[in-house]
This record gives sequence, structure tokens and C-alpha cells, in this order.
Amino acid sequence: MKKSISKPARERLIQLVRLLEQVQSTETLAVITSAEIEKRTGWTNATVRRDISLLGINCASSAGYSIAALIEAIKAVLNISRSEKKCCIVGLGRLGSALLEFEGFAHSSFKIAAGFDSSVNRTEILSAPFPLYPTSRMEAVIAQEGIEYAILAVPERSAQEAAERLCKCGIKGIVNYTSVVLRVNDGTMVENISVIDALQKLSSAG
Amino acid sequence: MKKSISKPARERLIQLVRLLEQVQSTETLAVITSAEIEKRTGWTNATVRRDISLLGINCASSAGYSIAALIEAIKAVLNISRSEKKCCIVGLGRLGSALLEFEGFAHSSFKIAAGFDSSVNRTEILSAPFPLYPTSRMEAVIAQEGIEYAILAVPERSAQEAAERLCKCGIKGIVNYTSVVLRVNDGTMVENISVIDALQKLSSAG
Repeated sequence: MKKSISKPARERLIQLVRLLEQVQSTETLAVITSAEIEKRTGWTNATVRRDISLLGINCASSAGYSIAALIEAIKAVLNISRSEKKCCIVGLGRLGSALLEFEGFAHSSFKIAAGFDSSVNRTEILSAPFPLYPTSRMEAVIAQEGIEYAILAVPERSAQEAAERLCKCGIKGIVNYTSVVLRVNDGTMVENISVIDALQKLSSAG
Repeated sequence: MKKSISKPARERLIQLVRLLEQVQSTETLAVITSAEIEKRTGWTNATVRRDISLLGINCASSAGYSIAALIEAIKAVLNISRSEKKCCIVGLGRLGSALLEFEGFAHSSFKIAAGFDSSVNRTEILSAPFPLYPTSRMEAVIAQEGIEYAILAVPERSAQEAAERLCKCGIKGIVNYTSVVLRVNDGTMVENISVIDALQKLSSAG
């Protein structure tokens, strides 16, 4: 089933589940129509219904989709578990340290378990709700804590070297904030979220 | 031609052009093989050749692809112009202000022309290579400066309202750093780069 869901559809479903959770936590709705989803996301009604049909379940009534059932179905099909997944932040300059106060983690299943920076000074001065370490301890801490994902926010010139070290640690995936195109091992995935890439996508689509 | 390039292929080509520019500025190579691109990106040789074939040009010789010709072809097909495009940052908390020192803009065609924050205190204290304004002046400054793209880094609770104001200003695209699913007008595109989304994509693909 998973194989047949295209990347764009999967990305929409990931966003949809977050939207539904936002609705659940702030409103009293129990069902939602595809027209309502269209209004809140801008995806067409037809796209919404097609994406949901990919889940291979029937959670629709005449009043709309059951929000709870839809959330459960998306999580099951996309393998989004509630179990906590540990991440680390590599690079605690302005961008990396900005993530220390990012609100989005609170409602997610991802937990930042450690932060690393090459400057010991920085790791000692910054305050964070999780421990900060010098980069020299990266391999040891990742193994010890069972950290699976890394958020890479180092300066551009250090990005490739840091990525290689993370690969050697057996990290499953890297969220890449730098604009460097990273070379990684087969076992490691990269998701690029450089602001330059995002701007380029917007302007080349328009 | 543009229509026939899928979103994933377009995203790879956008990254490829950046990789090629990185190679051009740091190495003396004039040609590059698809095997070399595979080594540097992790995309398979076949994927690389298929993506390049979508450009509908022949920039290959027996030694490989001409880097300069490949850059030019990708930019032409994806409509990536060298002409400067103006952006603004909306929200200058830790994340927004981190972008003030992001190195990636230097080599891009995007120029940050303004920053906005609801706290006048913050816009007065922060130093930036471009002017900072209170959010109340957003509509006036965007029109006056001809700003086309916005980078949204406000707190989650203010995200939708800020997006609506940007839509009314006729902004072409929003890079969304928040984890809120934004509702926007037809004329405005959104590119989500929430770190939570990125982590979710990595973990649901694995």
C-alpha cells in the first residue's frame, strides 16, 4: 500500500494529519468535509478525496470524514507512530539555537535529545531543555542516546564533513538547513529545507 | 516543456544547478559525468541522466556534461533567472533573526529587502544589512519595494493572520517556517519548510 502513494500525496497527507490534529486540539468538530479541507489548505476537493482514497479505508459518512478515524488511518498507512523518535541538533549558531525555542516540537513525536557545537563556549553559555555537547562527543552521545535523526545547521563549509560523521554514526535521516548539496551513504536519507531552495521552488513554479 | 517535468525532478534539478555552481566556484572542472553527479548527490546515474534528458538539450560529450551549458539549460527550462527577486522576512524572533546571517543568500538571486516584526523594540535593537520595520508598515513597504516573496517565521498563533495579510499584498509566494497549515489565496503559493514536516517525511519514508 505504502509503495503506491506518490511523494506529493504523501507530503499532503503528512500536512493533513497535522491540520486535523490542530483542528482536534482547538475546535470541537468531530467530522470534516473535503470542501472544508479544501478551504483550509487550498488543495482542490478532488485532490483531497483522491489522497484520502489512497488510504484504502472508508472513514466517510454523509456528514464528512471522521477526524479521529482519518488521523488514525493516515498514521497507520504512512507509518507515523506515536512512539518518540530522538533527534539532535548539529550546529548551534543563530539558526541551530533558534530551534531551541521552536514551538512545533511540543505536539510532535520528535524529541530533541542533544545539541552539538564545535564551540565549547557556546555549548556552555546556551540554555536548552536538553544537554549540549562539544562536537567531539557526537559519536558517543548519538550511540548512547539512540538518536535516529539529525538537524544540520552548521556553517556551509562544515556541512559535508558533519554529514559524513553522522552517516558513520548510523543516523537514519538528516534535515539539512544548509544550502550545500550533501553526499551521504545509502542508509541515510536527506531532507533539504534550505530557505534558498524553497524560494527557488516558488519562483520556478510561478 | 516545463509542464512535463515532475515536481521531484524539478526539485532535483534545482539542487543540481546549485551543486554545479558550487563546483564551478570551488573547483576547476569544466565537465562532469553523471557518475560523478551520482557520487555527489546519491541520486542514481539513471535518475540523473533522465532528469537531464528532460531539459531537451544536448550538452553531453564523451567526457561528460559541460557544467556551464548544463547550468544555463536548467536555468532556462526552470525559468531561474539571474534577475534579482526581492523577499522579506516576517517575524524576527530567534528563527527569523537567524536568517539575518544566513550565508546562502550571497550566491542566490534572492535579496532580502526588508524585515518585519510586531515588536518595535526588536526592530530597533536588531542590526541587519536591510531595513527593519514594525509589522504595521508591511503593506506599504511591500508595495513600495516591489517585494515578491515572504519568509514567514512568526509564532504559530500569528501565522494564519500574517499569511492573509501577505496574500492581500499580492505576495507571489510564502516560505513557511511555522508548522501551521496555511490557507492562502489562489494567487499565492506556499512552500513549507517546517522542521517537523521534514522529520516526518524522513521517518515515514524509512
